[in-house]
Amino acid sequence: MTTNDSAGPAGRETANARDTTRLEAFSDGVFAIAITLLIIEIRPPHLADGEGSPELLQALLALWPAYLGYLISFLTIGIMWINHHHIFGFIARTDPWLVALNTLFLLCVAFIPFPTAVLAEYLGHPGQQVAALAYGGWFTVTAIAYNLLWRYPTYRRRLIAPDVPQASLDEVHRRFNFGPVIYLVATLLALFNPVLSLGVQLVLAIVYLIPYRGGGRAPEPA
Amino acid sequence: MTTNDSAGPAGRETANARDTTRLEAFSDGVFAIAITLLIIEIRPPHLADGEGSPELLQALLALWPAYLGYLISFLTIGIMWINHHHIFGFIARTDPWLVALNTLFLLCVAFIPFPTAVLAEYLGHPGQQVAALAYGGWFTVTAIAYNLLWRYPTYRRRLIAPDVPQASLDEVHRRFNFGPVIYLVATLLALFNPVLSLGVQLVLAIVYLIPYRGGGRAPEPA
Amino acid sequence: MTTNDSAGPAGRETANARDTTRLEAFSDGVFAIAITLLIIEIRPPHLADGEGSPELLQALLALWPAYLGYLISFLTIGIMWINHHHIFGFIARTDPWLVALNTLFLLCVAFIPFPTAVLAEYLGHPGQQVAALAYGGWFTVTAIAYNLLWRYPTYRRRLIAPDVPQASLDEVHRRFNFGPVIYLVATLLALFNPVLSLGVQLVLAIVYLIPYRGGGRAPEPA
Amino acid sequence: MTTNDSAGPAGRETANARDTTRLEAFSDGVFAIAITLLIIEIRPPHLADGEGSPELLQALLALWPAYLGYLISFLTIGIMWINHHHIFGFIARTDPWLVALNTLFLLCVAFIPFPTAVLAEYLGHPGQQVAALAYGGWFTVTAIAYNLLWRYPTYRRRLIAPDVPQASLDEVHRRFNFGPVIYLVATLLALFNPVLSLGVQLVLAIVYLIPYRGGGRAPEPA
Repeated sequence: MTTNDSAGPAGRETANARDTTRLEAFSDGVFAIAITLLIIEIRPPHLADGEGSPELLQALLALWPAYLGYLISFLTIGIMWINHHHIFGFIARTDPWLVALNTLFLLCVAFIPFPTAVLAEYLGHPGQQVAALAYGGWFTVTAIAYNLLWRYPTYRRRLIAPDVPQASLDEVHRRFNFGPVIYLVATLLALFNPVLSLGVQLVLAIVYLIPYRGGGRAPEPA
Repeated sequence: MTTNDSAGPAGRETANARDTTRLEAFSDGVFAIAITLLIIEIRPPHLADGEGSPELLQALLALWPAYLGYLISFLTIGIMWINHHHIFGFIARTDPWLVALNTLFLLCVAFIPFPTAVLAEYLGHPGQQVAALAYGGWFTVTAIAYNLLWRYPTYRRRLIAPDVPQASLDEVHRRFNFGPVIYLVATLLALFNPVLSLGVQLVLAIVYLIPYRGGGRAPEPA
Repeated sequence: MTTNDSAGPAGRETANARDTTRLEAFSDGVFAIAITLLIIEIRPPHLADGEGSPELLQALLALWPAYLGYLISFLTIGIMWINHHHIFGFIARTDPWLVALNTLFLLCVAFIPFPTAVLAEYLGHPGQQVAALAYGGWFTVTAIAYNLLWRYPTYRRRLIAPDVPQASLDEVHRRFNFGPVIYLVATLLALFNPVLSLGVQLVLAIVYLIPYRGGGRAPEPA
Repeated sequence: MTTNDSAGPAGRETANARDTTRLEAFSDGVFAIAITLLIIEIRPPHLADGEGSPELLQALLALWPAYLGYLISFLTIGIMWINHHHIFGFIARTDPWLVALNTLFLLCVAFIPFPTAVLAEYLGHPGQQVAALAYGGWFTVTAIAYNLLWRYPTYRRRLIAPDVPQASLDEVHRRFNFGPVIYLVATLLALFNPVLSLGVQLVLAIVYLIPYRGGGRAPEPA
């Protein structure tokens, strides 16, 4: 981040480059805050009078849906951050539409703590089906927003640096095409079994986080 | 951000440039945190004994004022961030008054989650009129603080880089003049219809976010 | 922030410079988060059945202690951030003690939302005296921690860049000497009148924020 | 942070260097947020009708477990931040596994506010033993995750800059080997005396923060 005293034609070019940097830095901030805020939705359990360590242990273990939600949401936001970093490596400059689409995408990411909190409260209790559908459904929406953010700058290589090989873009295209579909399928599983739906999402997050093929980055859904 | 070992006259110049950078980075941090904190004001609904998925679905839908408040506040803070970025591109250096006015403006931005939470709780319920007036009123106050932040460095081009064309400043002047007026009008609408007032603010936020005229940035109220 | 591949003697120098940068960036993050977290201590008021807009208006106005606490704490943390920026402009490199003292100081800053929340709940109610004493007392403690953070690098110019004029340091010395004393006096006023004590702290914050003498920075207590 | 328009073979090298920078910046964000979020787990005490300053003072003092937890967690996260900074000074480039292990480690760090909140609520009350075991146990888990993050890039100097002396790595190896063991021992002390266990963890945090041997950094457990 450098301050640019010039606003002439050359300055505009620099300003554009700076746009990308500051856009990435702002996005990183939102990612970092959303991922760290997840924890404040998990509240310490309360004991009744006369209860002690055994009951506290049981109450802490009974919070497993909250831990599971934290784990899946943390990994998923983490993967989204990694991908955001990855795709902005291809983008040479910003324009107002890219900024608008990025804002829309961040709106989705920053919302994630809410369905996570709903899931933590209802998984394993009556209402868990709707909680799991809302949780997976929101990730599906977020994956669609992520696709828009990726499609716009790559359409006719609108904002892509000239020396980025088309093959690199196509590889990301293929991965991003799968994202909303995979999330939708995982979400619909909740109609039959909410815990299974969550389990699939956890496995997906772990699979996407773990690299494969000698240093290459694993495909990610969104 | 570079560490500056020199504090001599030349060092002062560099320090001033660094001021802008660190001021922008600090402001970005406050923007990013305020925008992401909005979500923690939305709490999961609670069900009574014997209630399940249908009631949870209904309870989640009944939170629409919270979602609407989140949407408007997120977009509005996002637009303010974009504009902040934009106007600091014209500012060549800081001085203590600019820092003070920026602090005042950030104080307004960081306060936004509170009227948003009030709105989320009262829209659609008794008290919604005051909630909507407080919500819109605070954006009006924030728009005024934003105008002060913009008027000070541009007055007689006090802190403006020499090569910034006056036309660029005048264009922002025109837009910023409208900000407090538009917000005030939208706020006063709440006297007649609180939901309409919110609807207008949502439309404004979307209009300001969506770019127009081939890559140009849309006019923004604040 | 640049990644430094070298860890030899020359690399150490660079690493030290980078230390200052990353220490400042981390501190900025804590400042920005602490200042923005203040708002979540203010909760929307709750109405009884049958109450509406007039009662909500009254309930919002009755939260004035919360607004006052937000205002004072925001301005004070803002001033501390400005000063932190200012004094690190003189510091050429870090060492482990500086990092430790900076951590201790940030611990004090990050704690501020708690006494602010206590003040918001008790000012104007029974217990307000202890709340005001705790509030002012914590700022006194923070001012002392800030003095330690400033005294250590300046003692015999231990970590100060060679070309910083001694007069610049002496000026900060004079200001920092006053800090804990002023806060202590303002705190003890709460023994007689808690609201007066808060009023003095608000005036102090405004005085310190407003620049004076043609572009110079106002003296700050801590 | 510089925007890199090139994505050719040379660009890849630069991209890797940028990876480290952005990975560090993102990690710094998570550290700064987690450390600052600790405070919102401490809530103002509530008084009964007719109670005033003496009862508030007593209630504030009765929150000592919350202050102790804040102190230990803040210092420990602070030390982890310092160490993170330190070890990334040795790492020349990232790869997907390093990113994955760093995400896992940050997941542990961002979780710390929860066991801290449990400790604050139960220390000095029935259930304190489980609370102290959970608290220390989580730091043990975090120390293990930190070891994984350190072992991976240093194994056969996989991602280490060539000019980093092996002795520097070995020194960190020795320190990191102790981390999980020390935390495990401190945790198990809670089986006999929860307060003693916490006291040991506080002493450890202070010892690790305070530098020794003329400017050298103290050994740290994790």
